[in-house]
Amino acid sequence: MSSARLETFADGVFAIAATLLILNVNDAEGSLTHIWPQYVGYAASFLTIGIIWVNHHTVMDQIDHADRTFLMITVGFLMVVAFIPFPTRLVAENIQGDGARAATIAYGITLTLTAALFNAIWFYAARGGRLLRPDADPETVRGISKTFVFGPWLYLALTVVAAIDPVVGAIGFGVFALFWVIESSVFGRDRSHRSAER
Amino acid sequence: MSSARLETFADGVFAIAATLLILNVNDAEGSLTHIWPQYVGYAASFLTIGIIWVNHHTVMDQIDHADRTFLMITVGFLMVVAFIPFPTRLVAENIQGDGARAATIAYGITLTLTAALFNAIWFYAARGGRLLRPDADPETVRGISKTFVFGPWLYLALTVVAAIDPVVGAIGFGVFALFWVIESSVFGRDRSHRSAER
Amino acid sequence: MSSARLETFADGVFAIAATLLILNVNDAEGSLTHIWPQYVGYAASFLTIGIIWVNHHTVMDQIDHADRTFLMITVGFLMVVAFIPFPTRLVAENIQGDGARAATIAYGITLTLTAALFNAIWFYAARGGRLLRPDADPETVRGISKTFVFGPWLYLALTVVAAIDPVVGAIGFGVFALFWVIESSVFGRDRSHRSAER
Amino acid sequence: MSSARLETFADGVFAIAATLLILNVNDAEGSLTHIWPQYVGYAASFLTIGIIWVNHHTVMDQIDHADRTFLMITVGFLMVVAFIPFPTRLVAENIQGDGARAATIAYGITLTLTAALFNAIWFYAARGGRLLRPDADPETVRGISKTFVFGPWLYLALTVVAAIDPVVGAIGFGVFALFWVIESSVFGRDRSHRSAER
Repeated sequence: MSSARLETFADGVFAIAATLLILNVNDAEGSLTHIWPQYVGYAASFLTIGIIWVNHHTVMDQIDHADRTFLMITVGFLMVVAFIPFPTRLVAENIQGDGARAATIAYGITLTLTAALFNAIWFYAARGGRLLRPDADPETVRGISKTFVFGPWLYLALTVVAAIDPVVGAIGFGVFALFWVIESSVFGRDRSHRSAER
Repeated sequence: MSSARLETFADGVFAIAATLLILNVNDAEGSLTHIWPQYVGYAASFLTIGIIWVNHHTVMDQIDHADRTFLMITVGFLMVVAFIPFPTRLVAENIQGDGARAATIAYGITLTLTAALFNAIWFYAARGGRLLRPDADPETVRGISKTFVFGPWLYLALTVVAAIDPVVGAIGFGVFALFWVIESSVFGRDRSHRSAER
Repeated sequence: MSSARLETFADGVFAIAATLLILNVNDAEGSLTHIWPQYVGYAASFLTIGIIWVNHHTVMDQIDHADRTFLMITVGFLMVVAFIPFPTRLVAENIQGDGARAATIAYGITLTLTAALFNAIWFYAARGGRLLRPDADPETVRGISKTFVFGPWLYLALTVVAAIDPVVGAIGFGVFALFWVIESSVFGRDRSHRSAER
Repeated sequence: MSSARLETFADGVFAIAATLLILNVNDAEGSLTHIWPQYVGYAASFLTIGIIWVNHHTVMDQIDHADRTFLMITVGFLMVVAFIPFPTRLVAENIQGDGARAATIAYGITLTLTAALFNAIWFYAARGGRLLRPDADPETVRGISKTFVFGPWLYLALTVVAAIDPVVGAIGFGVFALFWVIESSVFGRDRSHRSAER
């Protein structure tokens, strides 16, 4: 399968998972201002999926073709991404109550798995240049490898924080999503200008 | 990232957000004629998203490539567009009751933010021709810049009206969507014929 | 806008509207065999949207480009197609009870409007060859014009039947969807072989 | 219709059906650990749809064009695939209760029909090379024909098992999905490397 076709399917899952998040927002449990955790949860998860979408394209830009193992890892990865709306709702509905700990841990585990499977996608493709394009940019390849490795550990650390103090953990997930957006857009400008010209 | 790929993802979010609006329509609270505000809300928001879709393509037609800042602004923009189904349901369910004011204000704020982020997309790309195509049509570029600036202020004004009289505000949002559709299709015919031939 | 881009958006709405139909199927109101009207409703509406999708491509194959009026008619058309899941649920849930008449009439009006707007799309594009491809096949163009005209009247007739006897009307909608599938696939084989080779 | 256009629509339905599965996961009926059957059901059905997606592309890679009969069989096939979320929820919610037998049988019938219609797609296209590409690989064509034939019988057998012992049947469906993923990714590596290079 060409990598273009794979991206179409992945983009579909990203777009649907992000858009379905709105179904979690409802005013059954309080006034429009009282349900602010739902707005924060919506924004944090939408931005997280948005960043995953952007990074997925950065990765796919370096990839020439897909084999069936790669497809199956991607299906597993998309399965976890499409799961994000569920723990998002859990956190939004329970952060101010008894279920806060279980909810934030569930959120953290989901994002840790997402990051881990994203690593699996990348390192399966990059090891020995297995699926990379012949003209893949060595610097970009090394850059992705260096950055991606931290993802799962960071989310795992936030999950541990959430297990100790759910509110601090939840703030951590939100701040991390925001940090990624700002880092990408402000500091990543030079980098992307260059690669966009390809 | 090429602008074509960005459009595929954006189109996915537009299509899903518009189609999800139907999930807000239900007859749990009255007979099929009694729930007419739900039909009006569905139509107004579907048309609004449809117009956003058309305008987004007009913008993207002038754009050559995307950098990461542009991608992140677009993700933020899509986040607000995908939020539209929620205040739509609020207005449809509450316009005849106590929650009418809060609901129409929420609707107005969402559309104001949508218009503001649409401006951010455009002016980030157009300032100094940063992301424009080398052969971008100067007249079209100036036309977009001139029209877009009014969007957020118009929606903000309607939001203020909704805060004073929710029913008048709601009618305003509906009339404005309809006006856009008619303006686009009847008066915009010459303009678009020309650009469609490109 | 190129017609290819328009088709991507329309295909997205078709695919989502058809797939959302499954959310209407639930066993809250009876055993798995007792809810058979839900299965029939799901199948009838899925097939109807599937046929609309196939026919939309037949139409778009003859079209060269889109102007803004054409886009706006298409948005209106998609708005009605995306509405189909709602009356489908109404019919499935009420066909054996008091609300059968209102439900089947709502279903009929939705499909009548869908067919009417599909006509609007076609005749706006075809009148004087306004948006047709320079090499559009005159025979196919005449064939579409001849067939499409009947659609709204047929659905209107079925709606009148449904107003008199809801069960007969509902059977009529189901039979008509099935007839279209069979007609298309069995009798339309020669026709499509030819056009597919283009 | 070109086979590329057909794939876009099919991919849309696959992506939406898979992503909608998350709407079945909810904690209304118990704690986050108590609802483990929902996680297993989500994973099994997501992987099953993922494998269908991969196999559908393998099939479409051999196909040159589509006629209307082929389109209609595909619509029927997608109708059954988009139905999968419903029996998935049934199994997840009832596997530990009275409705386990009916739920697993419903799941089995859905997957049996999916496999049967997938066969109909393939053998309609392949019989006498009707819709195959002129340069279709005879070995791949023979390979697909040989493998596909078993699908419906395997699912039918699992359905019979589910009718006798629902829990054993449910485990069977899960194991079979997992087996397919592993078989595809580990043993299918050589095969796909080759075809991916096309």
